[in-house]
Amino acid sequence: MLLDREQELRDRHGISFRITGIATRSLGCIANPSGLDPNSYVERAPSPANGRKSDRELTSVRDWLSAAQADILFEATSLNVETGQPAIDHIRAALEHGAHAITANKGPIVHAYRELRDLAAAKGKRFLFESTVMDGVPIFSFFHEMPTIHLQGFHGILNSTTNVILSEMEKGLSFDEALKKAQQLGIAETDATHDIDGWDAAVKTAALVTVLMDMPVKLEDIAREGIRDLTTNALRNGRRDGWPFKLVCRAQRVGDGVRASVVPEKVLSTSPMGKISGASSYIYFETDIFPGLAITEENPGVYATAYGMLADFVRAVSK
Amino acid sequence: MLLDREQELRDRHGISFRITGIATRSLGCIANPSGLDPNSYVERAPSPANGRKSDRELTSVRDWLSAAQADILFEATSLNVETGQPAIDHIRAALEHGAHAITANKGPIVHAYRELRDLAAAKGKRFLFESTVMDGVPIFSFFHEMPTIHLQGFHGILNSTTNVILSEMEKGLSFDEALKKAQQLGIAETDATHDIDGWDAAVKTAALVTVLMDMPVKLEDIAREGIRDLTTNALRNGRRDGWPFKLVCRAQRVGDGVRASVVPEKVLSTSPMGKISGASSYIYFETDIFPGLAITEENPGVYATAYGMLADFVRAVSK
Repeated sequence: MLLDREQELRDRHGISFRITGIATRSLGCIANPSGLDPNSYVERAPSPANGRKSDRELTSVRDWLSAAQADILFEATSLNVETGQPAIDHIRAALEHGAHAITANKGPIVHAYRELRDLAAAKGKRFLFESTVMDGVPIFSFFHEMPTIHLQGFHGILNSTTNVILSEMEKGLSFDEALKKAQQLGIAETDATHDIDGWDAAVKTAALVTVLMDMPVKLEDIAREGIRDLTTNALRNGRRDGWPFKLVCRAQRVGDGVRASVVPEKVLSTSPMGKISGASSYIYFETDIFPGLAITEENPGVYATAYGMLADFVRAVSK
Repeated sequence: MLLDREQELRDRHGISFRITGIATRSLGCIANPSGLDPNSYVERAPSPANGRKSDRELTSVRDWLSAAQADILFEATSLNVETGQPAIDHIRAALEHGAHAITANKGPIVHAYRELRDLAAAKGKRFLFESTVMDGVPIFSFFHEMPTIHLQGFHGILNSTTNVILSEMEKGLSFDEALKKAQQLGIAETDATHDIDGWDAAVKTAALVTVLMDMPVKLEDIAREGIRDLTTNALRNGRRDGWPFKLVCRAQRVGDGVRASVVPEKVLSTSPMGKISGASSYIYFETDIFPGLAITEENPGVYATAYGMLADFVRAVSK
C-alpha cells in the first residue's frame, strides 16, 4: 500500500519515504538506511539480499531501529491478550529511539496506554493505533475531532470472525463448519480462540474505554462471554423469529467508573446491529452533544487495516 | 456554549478567550477589545452598554473586526442560496484581517470555496465550516483523517425539516399541519421554503461534493425536487406498504464529473434511510478502501450546531 500510494503521498501530502528496515519472524531484522525494496522480501524465503545486517547481528529491536535510522515504526505483531508483548517493547523502543510508533496491535493500548502516550508526548513523537478497532476507520481520530465532548457509553459489533460464524450457523452450518468458512474467507485466523471466546472484542472494548473515556479498564473487569455455547438450532430459531444473536460490546459510565461487557445478545433483526452481517462492523456512541452517533463499516476491503496504518503515517508526519 | 465550556477549554486544551465583538442585525456592530459580556446582549433590547462603538460608528465588518482586534470570526448569518452573501464578504474580511473564519453558513462553500480556502492558506489561517452539514458532526474532519482516500459517491438524508414533515404526514397530518408542527418543534424556520423545495439539501450536497470530492458543483447542476407534491395519502400508503418516502441526497462520480440529485425516493422501511426519523440524519459514503462507511446522527441536541463551531474553534487555534 505504501508503494501503491507513493505518488499520491508525495503530490497531495508532500510526503516521501524510504523503507529502511524490515523485521519479521521468518526474515529476522533487516536494515539499510539507504532503502530496501520491500517486494524482494514478500512471498520469498529469507534472503536479506540488499539489507546490511541479518538477524544474526541485529538481535534487538533497538539495534535494528538504529541501523535502519528509523523515523517511523509500523508495528504489526499479533495480539497477546495477557501482556500486550512484544508490541509494548517495540513501541517503547521506537519512541525512545525518536521514531513515531504506529501499531495495529490492541495489546499495548490495554496494557500500557498511558505510559506510551506520555512517553510519546515527552519525545515529541506520535503513538497512533487507528487500525486496532474497526479496521482502519478513523474512530479515535473522529473523537479527537470532537473536543470537550463527553462520551457516556457505546455499544456495537466489533469482531468479524464471530459475526461471520453466527451468520453461517443461522443458515444451518455447525460451529466447526462455520469456523472453517470464516477461515476460508480469510477473516478468522488458524487459531480463532481469541475471537470465539470474546477476547478480541473485549480488548477492543477496553481500548475504546481507555482512550475515548480516559478510563483504563482491566480485561478481567469486562464481563466476557464467547459464542461457544450457542447452538445451530438456537441461532436458526433466533433468526427465524426476527431476533438474531450478535456478540455485542457494551460500555457505560456508572458513577465514577465504567461497566463494560462482551456478551451474545438477541437483537431485533431490523435494528442497526441486527443488520450487521459478515465482516461488517458497527458502533453507536452516546455523547452529551450527540445523543446517538453511529458509524457503520460495511464489508471492509482487504486493505482496510493496512490503510489505517497508512493514515496514521500521514497523521504522524503532518502534524 | 463558549461560556459553558470555558473551564474545560482552558484545562483540557490550554485555550482561553475573550469575546471582543458582537454583531447582529438588531444590535448592530459592538466591539471592545478588553472583552464583552455576551449575557448582557442576549434576549435584550439593543444597548451597547460596555461596547466601545455602536453600529452608527462601525458600519463595515472590517472596521468592526479591527475594533474588536478579532483573532476568530464565528459567522452565523442565514443562507442565501443564490449568492452565498453576505457570509462570503464576512469570511473574506476576517481572513484578510488575519483572523480564522468559522461559519455555519453553507452558502460560502458552494459559491466561494476555492477562493476562501486559498485565501486562508495564503494568510496562514483556517476556514472551517463543520456546522454546515449534519449539525456539528465532524464530517469534513472525518474525511480529512482519511488521507489519499477516494470518495466515489454518497447518499443520505440531510434535511431535518422535510424529514419531520414527511414523518408527520405519514401519520395523517396535512402538509400545512406538518409544517406547523416542525416549526413548533423549532426545527423548521418561519420561512421553510428552502427546506421544502430541497434547496437546503441541495446546498449540503453541493458542499460535500465540492469539499470531499474536490469537484465544485453548481446548484443548477443538481437535479432537485422538493416534497410539495407529496400528498398525505401517498405518504400514508408508502409507510403502510413498508416503503416510506424520504428526501434523499445523492452524488456519484461519473467519468470526470459527478452526478448529484436531491429527490424524494421510496426507501425500504427497514433500510438505514428508512429508519431515519425526525431530526436525525444519515450519510453513506462509498470509498476505495471502505466500500460502505455510514454515519448516523440520532436526534441531535439543541447545541449540536453551536458545538460544531466550538469544535472548529479548537481546531483553528490548536493546529
